[in-house]
Amino acid sequence: MARADYPEPVKGLIDELKRMPGVGPRSAERIALWLLQNPKAQPGALAGAIEQAASAVTSCPICGFFATVEGCPVCSDHSRDPGIMCVVEEATDVLPIERSGAFKGLYHCLGGKLSPLDNVTPDDLRIGLLVKRLAEMPGAEVVLAVGADVEGEATANYLAEILQGSDCSVTRLAQGLPAGGDLEHADALTVSRAFEGRRGLS
Amino acid sequence: MARADYPEPVKGLIDELKRMPGVGPRSAERIALWLLQNPKAQPGALAGAIEQAASAVTSCPICGFFATVEGCPVCSDHSRDPGIMCVVEEATDVLPIERSGAFKGLYHCLGGKLSPLDNVTPDDLRIGLLVKRLAEMPGAEVVLAVGADVEGEATANYLAEILQGSDCSVTRLAQGLPAGGDLEHADALTVSRAFEGRRGLS
Repeated sequence: MARADYPEPVKGLIDELKRMPGVGPRSAERIALWLLQNPKAQPGALAGAIEQAASAVTSCPICGFFATVEGCPVCSDHSRDPGIMCVVEEATDVLPIERSGAFKGLYHCLGGKLSPLDNVTPDDLRIGLLVKRLAEMPGAEVVLAVGADVEGEATANYLAEILQGSDCSVTRLAQGLPAGGDLEHADALTVSRAFEGRRGLS
Repeated sequence: MARADYPEPVKGLIDELKRMPGVGPRSAERIALWLLQNPKAQPGALAGAIEQAASAVTSCPICGFFATVEGCPVCSDHSRDPGIMCVVEEATDVLPIERSGAFKGLYHCLGGKLSPLDNVTPDDLRIGLLVKRLAEMPGAEVVLAVGADVEGEATANYLAEILQGSDCSVTRLAQGLPAGGDLEHADALTVSRAFEGRRGLS
């Protein structure tokens, strides 16, 4: 007697689902069975949404954010301040900044960060395009909003260097204690950067 | 200036993904961006697997387990013991039992458990079909493998009652300490049932 198992299409679905980030074998099985058994699951709608998004969503050729045939929601918004450009690593970094409401200018997504260990060199990032865009934005401010990790530091230093000759002013996001963070749980590097960046109370 | 947001197809995909069990808004966003950005994601394969499974997988008209056009993997396996039938609540309960290797007979999935609070009455379960199947299995053993919760108890008691007149012998899964479970962390009801079900050491 062979032990009964799910039919092949169910196993295939579980295999596909468990490739998703954060979804393990147990969750994949649970989701698959929910899709097949729950009358509210509407597997067709999920499959349709995946295919629709995969075919309709592209990368904006100018800034690198998500775009559709209707254009890029950032580059096509002419009410944005054209004198300030925020440089981020990935397109996914734009949304947290937009949600903060702290920035109203343009974006440039590099498509990664410098990482010799992963063979990511300046040629792999959208740096040439950045320089070209900035050449058409005389006197602009460039905010380097890359991560505070080693690769982010390297990327920021590299960009600061190649932008040195231009007439842009280059700034970098502040590093320090996160909002709501207490000193007790802050790591030494965070505390040391919070000290370096301390400001006078006006 | 409107805050930039994901294009509509991305938002639609996130909305669909976060309907899946165990997937919250943050995970849904992460999965959606992975599907759209990661070259290994193959969104078409995932969408295809969902549609394939949703269209190919049905419920076996006899036992209620998952079946395809090729038939039900349990009912079509003639090497199984036709003299013993395991009654479970849901089709998803079959696999854990199969994986245990402790049972080699037939299954009957009720499609739920009695629950007056959720308006689940005996008419909503596949009980008539169970009685009909057992009528063709004279002298069979019926193992009630329903859950050990209140509704499971009620379902087991109801089934034991209606099968009383038949010539089937009705048994129920043992309740007691789970394998590897220590007394310290066992709840009172589990301990009390483990005492009730204690057996002589042969």
